[in-house]
Amino acid sequence: MQKKANGKIRIIPLGGLNEVGKNMTVIEYEDDMIIVDCGLGFPDEDMLGVDLVIPDMSYLEKNKDRIKGVFLTHGHEDHIGAIPYLLRVINPPIYGTKLTLGIIKNKLEEFKLENKPNLCHVTAGSIIKAGAMTVEFIHVNHSIADACALAIGTPIGTIVHTGDFKLDVTPIDGEMMNITRLGELGKKGVLMLLCESTNAERAGYTPSEKEVGKSLEYIFSTNRDKRIVIATFSSNVHRVQQIINVSASHGRKVAITGRSMLNIVGAATELGYMTVPDGVLIDISEIKRYKPEELTLITTGSQGEPMSALYRMAFSDHDKVKLCTSDLVVLSSSAIPGNEKLVGRIINELTKKGVSVLHDAVVAVHVSGHACREEIKLMQALTKPKYFMPIHGEFRHMNANREIALTMGINPNHIFISEIGKVLEIDRKGARWAGSVPAGNVLVDGLGVGDVGNIVLRDRRHLAQDGLIVVVATVDAEDRLLLSGPDIVSRGFVYVRESEALMEEVKALAMDSIINCLDSYDVYDRMQLKTRVKDEVSKFLYSKTKRKPMVLPVIMNV
Amino acid sequence: MQKKANGKIRIIPLGGLNEVGKNMTVIEYEDDMIIVDCGLGFPDEDMLGVDLVIPDMSYLEKNKDRIKGVFLTHGHEDHIGAIPYLLRVINPPIYGTKLTLGIIKNKLEEFKLENKPNLCHVTAGSIIKAGAMTVEFIHVNHSIADACALAIGTPIGTIVHTGDFKLDVTPIDGEMMNITRLGELGKKGVLMLLCESTNAERAGYTPSEKEVGKSLEYIFSTNRDKRIVIATFSSNVHRVQQIINVSASHGRKVAITGRSMLNIVGAATELGYMTVPDGVLIDISEIKRYKPEELTLITTGSQGEPMSALYRMAFSDHDKVKLCTSDLVVLSSSAIPGNEKLVGRIINELTKKGVSVLHDAVVAVHVSGHACREEIKLMQALTKPKYFMPIHGEFRHMNANREIALTMGINPNHIFISEIGKVLEIDRKGARWAGSVPAGNVLVDGLGVGDVGNIVLRDRRHLAQDGLIVVVATVDAEDRLLLSGPDIVSRGFVYVRESEALMEEVKALAMDSIINCLDSYDVYDRMQLKTRVKDEVSKFLYSKTKRKPMVLPVIMNV
Repeated sequence: MQKKANGKIRIIPLGGLNEVGKNMTVIEYEDDMIIVDCGLGFPDEDMLGVDLVIPDMSYLEKNKDRIKGVFLTHGHEDHIGAIPYLLRVINPPIYGTKLTLGIIKNKLEEFKLENKPNLCHVTAGSIIKAGAMTVEFIHVNHSIADACALAIGTPIGTIVHTGDFKLDVTPIDGEMMNITRLGELGKKGVLMLLCESTNAERAGYTPSEKEVGKSLEYIFSTNRDKRIVIATFSSNVHRVQQIINVSASHGRKVAITGRSMLNIVGAATELGYMTVPDGVLIDISEIKRYKPEELTLITTGSQGEPMSALYRMAFSDHDKVKLCTSDLVVLSSSAIPGNEKLVGRIINELTKKGVSVLHDAVVAVHVSGHACREEIKLMQALTKPKYFMPIHGEFRHMNANREIALTMGINPNHIFISEIGKVLEIDRKGARWAGSVPAGNVLVDGLGVGDVGNIVLRDRRHLAQDGLIVVVATVDAEDRLLLSGPDIVSRGFVYVRESEALMEEVKALAMDSIINCLDSYDVYDRMQLKTRVKDEVSKFLYSKTKRKPMVLPVIMNV
Repeated sequence: MQKKANGKIRIIPLGGLNEVGKNMTVIEYEDDMIIVDCGLGFPDEDMLGVDLVIPDMSYLEKNKDRIKGVFLTHGHEDHIGAIPYLLRVINPPIYGTKLTLGIIKNKLEEFKLENKPNLCHVTAGSIIKAGAMTVEFIHVNHSIADACALAIGTPIGTIVHTGDFKLDVTPIDGEMMNITRLGELGKKGVLMLLCESTNAERAGYTPSEKEVGKSLEYIFSTNRDKRIVIATFSSNVHRVQQIINVSASHGRKVAITGRSMLNIVGAATELGYMTVPDGVLIDISEIKRYKPEELTLITTGSQGEPMSALYRMAFSDHDKVKLCTSDLVVLSSSAIPGNEKLVGRIINELTKKGVSVLHDAVVAVHVSGHACREEIKLMQALTKPKYFMPIHGEFRHMNANREIALTMGINPNHIFISEIGKVLEIDRKGARWAGSVPAGNVLVDGLGVGDVGNIVLRDRRHLAQDGLIVVVATVDAEDRLLLSGPDIVSRGFVYVRESEALMEEVKALAMDSIINCLDSYDVYDRMQLKTRVKDEVSKFLYSKTKRKPMVLPVIMNV
């Protein structure tokens, strides 16, 4: 049967290529369509005021009847964070492992959704039918528990999507990535491997999560007289488990602070992903009852996020925890690119308080969750794909992944570096680019989804740079008279009280400009008047200050 | 004579402590005052629209008659960049080595200064009398040629100020840091060591500049078929020299692009700090005449600076250089914290063009110019200071420097972690804090120096976050009538064409608000009216959008 099938596969990334985050891939076989992951991204520094970024979902909305399901590789925000927004548009079944769905449930409580989401539990090993396709979940290691790669069976061949992965031969939950299954698929023949690229520039293997355990043991052994505060990613269930274990073995109580940390530890314990020895966990309000050296605090804020629990501790703004010279803070994390200065600020502030600080530049308190070069090679060697597409990463990462594939002997003509919206078509005859679908960034700002675009951002950047000057005047359009004003209001330009002379000059200039304009044209034209005021004021201010504030003329007619 | 002296030394940092850059220190003995360095800093990311930051110089202005001179350790912007601003206020003699003053002359040409600056050449070994003090220049290694530490003699003891330094036992210009002289000073007795802290967190020794030469040789040997483009810091004269040397030995011509690179290579060659073999240097417009593999280009832009030569090449916007797959770009630098994303953007863009890219994460094409822990220990061991003050760095760096001093056996009570404006007083009896002088950040924005402060920045941040809404109305204050408007103008808030309904609602709300207010009070109060409109519109918008644009009510009276 399968041999005779003659349909077309289409692979369409909607996010996660040429960027970090916002991971989402559409895979189609003829009329059937599945979605792999549905993540959010964080705004670039020039997306002023934007809270988060989600994929353009218009292609999905248009094709909603073809969608057989959303298949989630794991529970990180960059793989599941856009689900609440997807559910406003369509309501397909969502397949994920227990922890992944547990995190989503927590998340959906914040959103008021009309439709009840259709969440379907799977476990590693599950095979789900999705139209003419099947989707098999395969256990991988990552910095969150219960992560999977996907093997997507189609009538013309198998596609392996790695999700995010690393090989951990001594993982905390006892299960190594299922390389056996990946090897079996390779033996049968994999048509296409979609492989994550995050660490493709890094040589060697990513160390095991257990290495962090060793460092923690060393830190706890050499700091028996100190209270130990450890900040890490809340979703790193295994990291938190290790911190709890080492604390318990050293006779310490553990208190948790930070909303997302409390949420995830709650969910993970409930679902059985974390085991806390009896009596070890105490409420943060109980820490007064113990001596500092009997305590471990686990907290959010490892990226220096303002208002996170660690940030508040550092700036003496945490209502339960006051840090002092007998405290040790451990940042069990590494700064995500762009966050270096925020993290540095916390380290400075803690050091000023006399708090000891350990971070990943000093001691091995963090390991990555992503495959380095040798692990990517392993993945390619196991699956032996005919076609290869690097995913998840900036161009440099995808390109590094491509170079790995070349060294592994994959045919250069069979390697496809794609971009979001770009369609790769595969059939029995071969693989080829086949046009594109709408794709891009949809910006979320407050409650608004997509109502902030390039024009709004351009204005925000302009305002941020040099502030604004509003010139307001009331005119009698009929008799061509200036009735009131011009008033000059400025914000973010200069400190007005110290620049009164300049403001008076602007006022005089604007008045001349308005009066001349009212006098000099046959027909009253508000647009023309505004343009003239704007141009003259802008030019004057630039000559005086070499700044270009936004000049906003408002002319009222009476 | 000296034994009987009984005066007071005062050490007052005006910049460079708890921050990176803006280095400036005042040292006083009784009524005499000298200034060490006069640098600028770059704005933090929350200082929107600010071009650069200079030290508050009001203390210097007030005491200008006491100032015996400005003594410059080397020619980096963070040590000399604020000199044009200092010269607007005072005009003391400025002492520096040849290259340092050469760079300043170049710089001053951009500024129109009333007073002719009084630049005084010194060489390493020079001793300058400054009132009751003497200042001796001592050669050190750094990432710019002609750098010095200073030994400041006072009647009650010697102060050593390291400037920025590293120990390079195989430097490019043949001269190692003058550790002999530092050791002699130590033998005689150093009262206070002011020591830079930039790399105090890093173990070991900073590698020699020559190590970069070896990497360059390897890169040139293994890329004989490619044009090689190398980006580096323009002030790193020795780096540029090495690139020219290896190019010449491989029979390549060298072309230079980027304004600051051209400036510095010009000045350095003219002053004899750089030697270019005859016929090697060609103009960038001549590169067409040579085969790609016969060329090396040296360029600015190693920090990813927008509009730098490398940035323009990467984005196909350089009029002389078009990059292609047969080009190799080498970033001979490391990203300054905060610039990681800018540098990453360039690497992505180059990689997309198929250009090969090498950077310091891949091959050793950069070394730091600052002393690591072992070199700081060496400095402390040579000078054996009685008192110690870490300078130049964030708190974490200064604190790491303090910890080094503790391991070297410096009395903990003799180590002073200062801050800008804080006065340390030393006399024969001891050292102690003695109040403070005005100090802080003066922000430069366009032509304005100090006219942008906290209020302006707060407004810019507010505008950047959610934009603004201007509500304008004309009222007849006497008869309490709304004559015209309200008009609603928004910028940076929502894309208005897609949010017409919302804007109409705002208009209606503002109108109600104005009319109610005009009706409900006995006395017309414009302030009250504005406050009410602002509050009601803000509250409405937040409820609708969860955003808080700046609401700017302008009420005109006729």
